[in-house]
Amino acid sequence: MANPMKVGLIGFGNIGTGVVDLLNRSGALIGSRLPRPIEIARIADLDTESARMCEYDPAILSTDVDGLLGDPEIEAVIELIGGYEPARTFVERALRAGKHVVTANKAMLARHGADLMANAPKGAALLYEAAIGGGIPIVRTIHQGLAANNITSIRAIINGTSNYILSSMESGSVTFKEALAEAQRLGYAEPDPTFDIDGTDPGHKIVLLASQCFGQDVRFDDIMVEGIQKLTPMDFAYAAELKYRIKLLAIAKRDGPGAPAEVRVSPTLLSRASMLAQVSGVFNAVEVIGDPIGPTLYYGRGAGPAPTASAVVSDLMALASASAEGGLERETRLRIPVGQKNLKPREETETEYYLRFQVVDQPGTMAVISKILGENKISIKSMIQHGEDRSETAPVIIITHTAREGDVQRALNAIRETKINKAEPVVLRVEEA
Amino acid sequence: MANPMKVGLIGFGNIGTGVVDLLNRSGALIGSRLPRPIEIARIADLDTESARMCEYDPAILSTDVDGLLGDPEIEAVIELIGGYEPARTFVERALRAGKHVVTANKAMLARHGADLMANAPKGAALLYEAAIGGGIPIVRTIHQGLAANNITSIRAIINGTSNYILSSMESGSVTFKEALAEAQRLGYAEPDPTFDIDGTDPGHKIVLLASQCFGQDVRFDDIMVEGIQKLTPMDFAYAAELKYRIKLLAIAKRDGPGAPAEVRVSPTLLSRASMLAQVSGVFNAVEVIGDPIGPTLYYGRGAGPAPTASAVVSDLMALASASAEGGLERETRLRIPVGQKNLKPREETETEYYLRFQVVDQPGTMAVISKILGENKISIKSMIQHGEDRSETAPVIIITHTAREGDVQRALNAIRETKINKAEPVVLRVEEA
Repeated sequence: MANPMKVGLIGFGNIGTGVVDLLNRSGALIGSRLPRPIEIARIADLDTESARMCEYDPAILSTDVDGLLGDPEIEAVIELIGGYEPARTFVERALRAGKHVVTANKAMLARHGADLMANAPKGAALLYEAAIGGGIPIVRTIHQGLAANNITSIRAIINGTSNYILSSMESGSVTFKEALAEAQRLGYAEPDPTFDIDGTDPGHKIVLLASQCFGQDVRFDDIMVEGIQKLTPMDFAYAAELKYRIKLLAIAKRDGPGAPAEVRVSPTLLSRASMLAQVSGVFNAVEVIGDPIGPTLYYGRGAGPAPTASAVVSDLMALASASAEGGLERETRLRIPVGQKNLKPREETETEYYLRFQVVDQPGTMAVISKILGENKISIKSMIQHGEDRSETAPVIIITHTAREGDVQRALNAIRETKINKAEPVVLRVEEA
Repeated sequence: MANPMKVGLIGFGNIGTGVVDLLNRSGALIGSRLPRPIEIARIADLDTESARMCEYDPAILSTDVDGLLGDPEIEAVIELIGGYEPARTFVERALRAGKHVVTANKAMLARHGADLMANAPKGAALLYEAAIGGGIPIVRTIHQGLAANNITSIRAIINGTSNYILSSMESGSVTFKEALAEAQRLGYAEPDPTFDIDGTDPGHKIVLLASQCFGQDVRFDDIMVEGIQKLTPMDFAYAAELKYRIKLLAIAKRDGPGAPAEVRVSPTLLSRASMLAQVSGVFNAVEVIGDPIGPTLYYGRGAGPAPTASAVVSDLMALASASAEGGLERETRLRIPVGQKNLKPREETETEYYLRFQVVDQPGTMAVISKILGENKISIKSMIQHGEDRSETAPVIIITHTAREGDVQRALNAIRETKINKAEPVVLRVEEA
């Protein structure tokens, strides 16, 4: 058997434990699919004391990151500490030393990935299958399986926590707060769930997918991100009446090479007829539309030590193969040109909208709203107006045809200034099947 | 730019035209993802006269397969003529000459694939992404994205024609004959639809998937295949009542390396709660469960020139990369050991069953049936018995708990011999979410 590829693991928490456990349990099977075995030769973590749920040689665990990064025998480094720093610095140092890096760190990549790849020496690859939906092998699938395609659309449910909360709100008619509390009780939401519910985490992931698919240097600060905190049971009820589900969708679209791209995360009414709308609970899915392949969809668990370990080890296997047999260039062709981007200004983005107004319940109200919408080139596709007994105001729900964001914002400003408008309008986006 | 990889195309029908058209239309994009361009240098087809829906140089089209196979400049051959012969011979000759082969020919591969790969010289790859659901990049995804997994279960809807017919029967309560006629009128079924409706085509595909995932030499003649011809609107109605859909499922399962595998195609009641049950019309999907990744699902168009061209060209791109940069061994690791297989005998396979009996409508009937089932170690999970007015017989529908095929066949034989049984029992398999 050829000499093993020695790997250094930085970060020995749940995910790191999952990686070591997988290599322990499935070492023979994995080895049978490789020209050389994979060996975790060093582990660095601030915590060297806690018990881990896997077998490992205590002699290889230390707090000595410098020793790991400086060890010439280490060919690849797995970064699993998360966050921006010191993760970025460790990854940069590993790449500069000519080592490959495998990471699950979407936040760091969405901010620094393009620079790290651009500055890495030719023979050092930065792979990140685990950064987007650990249980969906989407990075390599787009890179290789869909290699012949011009990808025009990605629509993704890529945050399990928020999808779990939305599924609960839909099926249980509970409030956001109640659904979040339940998710925390079940371990599906962190004690501080901010990044999962405010759209940051799926924002990081769609930045990576958009960069890869469009070959552009899209960064997190470039994109529009909205979370699910303001959704109410009322909106779920209207969505259901109109045959939609509400999902936190991460979207990246462009017409083709050269056309400006649109990248955003927002709670969205999604037609119940679509495959994507069937994705419930903590599961994730990525729909990719390409020319010539047409619509495709990839579904699996979004997070957790086991699926993430699958992704990390698949990257290690690509590196073990390439180091023995060649083909590393193919892996590093994921690099994107730093600074090159072509994004649609937010006001020019186009979609259908769900608008919910709370207005005075009297004749002529609809005429005021539809006049303002019409003046702003927004046409109405469907509408719900239920009179509410003994109330002076009533909700009006409108689904628009495709409209420009700038026009919608102008119309909303005008409606806010009318006397009939009695509450801040609710604005959600709408996606058909 | 490096010298192009010259490719010979055998078979210039709809799919071949799709491949040439894709390389014409997206040549720049595809080239930007490769170290060397791909050039269709020769095309061989018996028909050199008919107009094709793509631009091509008429000078490269001829009937001369020998010239193509003997041309030392041709590095890769695309085989798109289908059927067993002369396709097999052409592929064998190309491989022997050290050329790579890309094929969409599932029938030929399900019978001869293992031998062809085993006898190919080391530097010649036989790739077949297009053979299983052209619009789902499943072969490369399993090979690379899921490389770290022990795959324990594949359940797939991999025949668009039959899925279209079943979707029609479910939604329109039409007979099999009516649904087939409609599919033919719409071009979703061939004038001779035999292989699509009798399970042969999905059988070919599940043989390829099982061989790949389990590393076994499974051939078409080894597996159990049932078609959809005998399904009646009555079974769809009962399936709906029990919250199932009826799908033609191709299944391959095993507990792990070393355990015997179960590979079959049969019309199956599938829980409506599963993602797979949402796949309707001509779409295909493959659910793969692996350890550690858990359940995953891949969805897309099953057939058609455009999706199939995507798959063929993705294989060509892997070859163009590997020929310039190395890594071909990784592609050829799809080879499986000829003759090595470990399959569960049919009578030992286990699943839940749907049994529909037409029995005399009188007291004691159920006692007879349940006694025979119990004697054969089959326990009842749920049951429907609707008395029918003015009829001397009535249907009894039973969903069993997991039972062995051999026990079920014995029980059926016993029930057939009773006086209460008035028609051939209907037996379908059942899969939960």
